[in-house]
Amino acid sequence: MRTMMVLAILITVIGSSSALAAEPSPATSTCLECHRTATPGAVADWERSRHAHVTLQEALAKPALERRTSLTKAPKGRTDVAIGCAECHTINPREHKDTFAHEGYKVHVVVTPQDCATCHPVEVKQYGQNLMSHAYGNLNKNPVYHDLMEVTNGVPIYENGKVAYRKPNAQTDAESCNYCHGTVVGVKGAKAKDTDFGQMEFPVLTGWPNQGVGRINPDSSMGSCTACHARHQFSIQMARKPYTCAECHKGPDVPAYKVYEVSKHGNIFSSLHEEWDFNNVPWTVGKDFSAPTCAACHASLMVNEDGDVVAERTHRMNNRLPWRLLGLIYAHPHPKSPDTTVIKNKAGLALPTELTGEPVAKYVIDAQEQAQRRKAMERVCLACHHEGWVEGQWARLENTIRTTNESTLTATKIILAAWDTDLADDDSIFNEAIEKKWVEHWLFFANSTRLSSAMAGADYGVFANGRWYMNKNIQEMIDWIEFKGRETQ
Amino acid sequence: MRTMMVLAILITVIGSSSALAAEPSPATSTCLECHRTATPGAVADWERSRHAHVTLQEALAKPALERRTSLTKAPKGRTDVAIGCAECHTINPREHKDTFAHEGYKVHVVVTPQDCATCHPVEVKQYGQNLMSHAYGNLNKNPVYHDLMEVTNGVPIYENGKVAYRKPNAQTDAESCNYCHGTVVGVKGAKAKDTDFGQMEFPVLTGWPNQGVGRINPDSSMGSCTACHARHQFSIQMARKPYTCAECHKGPDVPAYKVYEVSKHGNIFSSLHEEWDFNNVPWTVGKDFSAPTCAACHASLMVNEDGDVVAERTHRMNNRLPWRLLGLIYAHPHPKSPDTTVIKNKAGLALPTELTGEPVAKYVIDAQEQAQRRKAMERVCLACHHEGWVEGQWARLENTIRTTNESTLTATKIILAAWDTDLADDDSIFNEAIEKKWVEHWLFFANSTRLSSAMAGADYGVFANGRWYMNKNIQEMIDWIEFKGRETQ
Amino acid sequence: MRTMMVLAILITVIGSSSALAAEPSPATSTCLECHRTATPGAVADWERSRHAHVTLQEALAKPALERRTSLTKAPKGRTDVAIGCAECHTINPREHKDTFAHEGYKVHVVVTPQDCATCHPVEVKQYGQNLMSHAYGNLNKNPVYHDLMEVTNGVPIYENGKVAYRKPNAQTDAESCNYCHGTVVGVKGAKAKDTDFGQMEFPVLTGWPNQGVGRINPDSSMGSCTACHARHQFSIQMARKPYTCAECHKGPDVPAYKVYEVSKHGNIFSSLHEEWDFNNVPWTVGKDFSAPTCAACHASLMVNEDGDVVAERTHRMNNRLPWRLLGLIYAHPHPKSPDTTVIKNKAGLALPTELTGEPVAKYVIDAQEQAQRRKAMERVCLACHHEGWVEGQWARLENTIRTTNESTLTATKIILAAWDTDLADDDSIFNEAIEKKWVEHWLFFANSTRLSSAMAGADYGVFANGRWYMNKNIQEMIDWIEFKGRETQ
Repeated sequence: MRTMMVLAILITVIGSSSALAAEPSPATSTCLECHRTATPGAVADWERSRHAHVTLQEALAKPALERRTSLTKAPKGRTDVAIGCAECHTINPREHKDTFAHEGYKVHVVVTPQDCATCHPVEVKQYGQNLMSHAYGNLNKNPVYHDLMEVTNGVPIYENGKVAYRKPNAQTDAESCNYCHGTVVGVKGAKAKDTDFGQMEFPVLTGWPNQGVGRINPDSSMGSCTACHARHQFSIQMARKPYTCAECHKGPDVPAYKVYEVSKHGNIFSSLHEEWDFNNVPWTVGKDFSAPTCAACHASLMVNEDGDVVAERTHRMNNRLPWRLLGLIYAHPHPKSPDTTVIKNKAGLALPTELTGEPVAKYVIDAQEQAQRRKAMERVCLACHHEGWVEGQWARLENTIRTTNESTLTATKIILAAWDTDLADDDSIFNEAIEKKWVEHWLFFANSTRLSSAMAGADYGVFANGRWYMNKNIQEMIDWIEFKGRETQ
Repeated sequence: MRTMMVLAILITVIGSSSALAAEPSPATSTCLECHRTATPGAVADWERSRHAHVTLQEALAKPALERRTSLTKAPKGRTDVAIGCAECHTINPREHKDTFAHEGYKVHVVVTPQDCATCHPVEVKQYGQNLMSHAYGNLNKNPVYHDLMEVTNGVPIYENGKVAYRKPNAQTDAESCNYCHGTVVGVKGAKAKDTDFGQMEFPVLTGWPNQGVGRINPDSSMGSCTACHARHQFSIQMARKPYTCAECHKGPDVPAYKVYEVSKHGNIFSSLHEEWDFNNVPWTVGKDFSAPTCAACHASLMVNEDGDVVAERTHRMNNRLPWRLLGLIYAHPHPKSPDTTVIKNKAGLALPTELTGEPVAKYVIDAQEQAQRRKAMERVCLACHHEGWVEGQWARLENTIRTTNESTLTATKIILAAWDTDLADDDSIFNEAIEKKWVEHWLFFANSTRLSSAMAGADYGVFANGRWYMNKNIQEMIDWIEFKGRETQ
Repeated sequence: MRTMMVLAILITVIGSSSALAAEPSPATSTCLECHRTATPGAVADWERSRHAHVTLQEALAKPALERRTSLTKAPKGRTDVAIGCAECHTINPREHKDTFAHEGYKVHVVVTPQDCATCHPVEVKQYGQNLMSHAYGNLNKNPVYHDLMEVTNGVPIYENGKVAYRKPNAQTDAESCNYCHGTVVGVKGAKAKDTDFGQMEFPVLTGWPNQGVGRINPDSSMGSCTACHARHQFSIQMARKPYTCAECHKGPDVPAYKVYEVSKHGNIFSSLHEEWDFNNVPWTVGKDFSAPTCAACHASLMVNEDGDVVAERTHRMNNRLPWRLLGLIYAHPHPKSPDTTVIKNKAGLALPTELTGEPVAKYVIDAQEQAQRRKAMERVCLACHHEGWVEGQWARLENTIRTTNESTLTATKIILAAWDTDLADDDSIFNEAIEKKWVEHWLFFANSTRLSSAMAGADYGVFANGRWYMNKNIQEMIDWIEFKGRETQ
């Protein structure tokens, strides 16, 4: 078998090198003339990419499951050229506020989902239904979360024996919460600069750099494909490896990667992935890889060795997810709309549950849709595991959703008691020490415990920000109330 | 030398591919017929395994040190076939409560150490002397630790201004502590299911899925070989890489992998292991690998380039360990029996030390045995380091055992003071805030500091859950007593 | 292109194997005779090294940019031999207090920067200007930091209802702070030992083992090249991979590696580095690697595909760093002298800022030098990014330097209030609970936030020891003062 693998590798190498036939367009050739020297790393990176090697015509000639474009017909002028600088950075010039005149071309800096949709329309459409594409607004335009952001990023100032907080500026938000959620990228005039090729004028961007999943772009589109498909190689290998997801899913609020890393799946990936193939499309379970990465369970088109589809490709990401485990006060059925600012609970807040945990039925998916999504995920599990295994796993996750929600409810009742007795005031529900403990209860510990359950990475449900910390937190919240109550007598 | 390495790789590839001669048994062929479609990932994984490629006859023809079976003679019917589905899933049918009739065979779901012992009897016997094989009982049947587990996993419920804890259910324990320690896998009737091949009946397992090191199996055996040798590839490469150990040895209670990762050894592994050979048996120091992984120091058969044995293979794991650094209140000489529930200290508790730290001599190994184990470990160290280096390293570890035990004694005296003065009550010794600080003192910080010393990963003995936190903890325990004392006046 | 890569690899392999011509010197051959058996791992490791394969003559025959020695002429006797055991362990015998008679040679155990300077004089000279080479004294001889070390490593002892701290011994310091900062390696007599080759006498070293960056060596030189260039392979590959830096730059006080890991750069490294070339000198951006590692930004000689130098090699490490972000109470312009014990602020302390944050101008670099260093770093960024991107990145970092310094100032004002009111006493400024919170404010949280900004790994500036913890810390410091104030009334 290994001889065959070696041969397969050699054939792949030779095969892909013959794909070098793709010629850059005249416009791209002009870009490359200077940029080979001006930004050599970016050009060399692109030269490794599939974009540099395969024309749309060649791509469309492949069997449907093997295609990496979701077009069925190549648009004019793009049939037989490489997808190079000009193809992406000069398209849709009028929509782009960041378009500027550059060496005879109308170039824009920021390539957006709308630009990528030229060749990948299905993926971009699916992504528009993904919570991620709305990540900017879902955080910044939800008053509750906006307050959490301000309380987190604000700068403490000490004056006359008191601490007050100055609101965070845009630069701080851009490199913290909005690094992942996305910034608003705008244009603020232009600036002349001396370059090796003479003086040139460039637009001045605000909110830049950024590659957050919900970026608001200069052409008004939302999202950033480069969040997962890093420029300029756009390697599918990279999107399929868990390190890409780790960029935003590793911290205590969302330790998905950490849980994966200590799970059996993660262990198999770490130990054996050097022998796998991360470039094949479709992705064949068992043959191309022996254990799932994030992409395998949540996004990739997966087939078995007979070519039967095990899971459809999706850029909506939650097709296989009945529950939303993360980020909110309680776990709950997935929201229907990717724009969660439309939600209103009984208290009038844009939260998918009441403060006591009941889901706001109108805005979340129903049991039938949950069952369908569970089924879609199970098909992935069943490619390796028998049904009894999979049922046991789901039963545990649903048990853990219940128990962690109960634990959060207890923490919520304690904080309500603190507010009722004025031991904590309610100017903000996030800024005092006991309120921060309450936030950590759900945002860190309950989240971590649920992820640990979902992906079987045990320690993140026990001593690594799991149940140990939830119960310690409860005791410390009780003590705080006692100590503080004494104070105020 | 590198030309030779390339040649060696090619020869290995061709060599191992000729091993493909191994034919599946008729029974296994029957399994494969359907399971190639039913569980394609599992079958493809097995096809990459040595079990699929080498017959016992071939395995036994190798020189003793190169053998991966500890048999000396092949049992009937297994001489010249691949070790496939049926060889493992139909053996010992009568012992297995999970045996069920399936397509004309008596199949069981859970393959156990007793099943593996058919070809690996020495390893299974050694493993029976390993603390790990008793990990279920050592946790669940020791009243002290059972209480710690309940206090950790219990669900806080708030009623009438008070918090009470509901005991954790079996599902919670199974995915947290018992994920690593092992569950009790039982059979609770059977259930008919519709499959692509018609309706079939399968046993319903409890405590399933699980692959914990001390799993109680449906054939009454203890342990799970797949904890480290993941199905169905059973790759020695994987068992030798540190990611496998990280599954259970990474959390704050036992951060062995984290310490390793920042040690010089771990750095060399991470930087250079792509050039090493993780499949050779025996494992040649310097030639196959340049720095030890967990397996090299604790388990593997290691030789030098002359073929002299540097260290014997062991599945008892503690042959080279004079001290037990982890998990208990104080570090102490290794316990004699892998079943630690037999221990009784003066207070009548199943703990290998008194509450003040003195080892319970009757139950722990003596100085002579400690010296032998140290010598066994030193032989590994001396393969690369000179004696002065190794002596310096041991002196530091023993110093750190003393100082961390002293620090824990101080924390213990503080908690005793809290109990004596009724500031904390002793319904459980783990459930109040100050008691949790005491637990973290030894379970997190002292453990971390000792592991950091043992494997030279400095930060885990200082600012990453090390001495910094022990001394901060002491101050916060003192403050808690002051604040609480004020309360109760 | 990939065909060419494969060919290039084959040529490299064959090319480097022809380099095997390098013969060991007679002295080294003598060493190898016994040490192949005595320390097989060390010898095999050396055999993989460039030192074993390339003579100085061959090295000097290369074009200047490709040379890995900074000599221009080979010293006598080293022209045409491998650089083996004897070349390093017998040089400069009289300077070495650890020299001992061994099988007819004068051998020393500890190879030092002064020994390495025989072939690498420029690197050793640069390293002498590196803060790291002074890391022992900068920590141990600065009274403020020496106190922090004692408070951190001291052993708490409980007597008569009170906790006192015993000062840490040298062994504790050696395996904690001084593991990275370096120990003083001394000689304390000699000791006879039985070996496989008869009885021999070896020097007894103190402070050994150690490979800290600021080690004080038995020849009075400072530093340890093996901190980053691990013995005995001295692989440039290893020094260029981030795992090497992680050994000392991963803990909460300096989480550089953790930030890198979740940055886009780190993600690209983790996902794609198996296809890169870490051995080429000079290192070509885009061709040899697609995203920077620590070495690329801070140390390596980097060129573009035309061979133009993008960045000079430096072992001073801070040539491209206008700001010192780490370890001190406030971020500040880099100190002028690598020996920071010479600094005196207004309070007479060896700190580069006042307690309120103003830099001590006399001892830190001026704005002009800062601008030059920033320009040097920008040249690295601009190899892939456009100017607007780079400017946006710097603006954020400088904003974050300001806001984190402000946050630390607030924490400092709170602790000053605690001292003023005698709620905390000033026997040490680090030993009480609130003082430890103050230390964590700057040593953990502000550092983490700044590193997160500098390298764009967002979570370490928010929920992973970032701004969330700074603001929580402020609230808990305020509460502590309230609770403690109540106590002392």
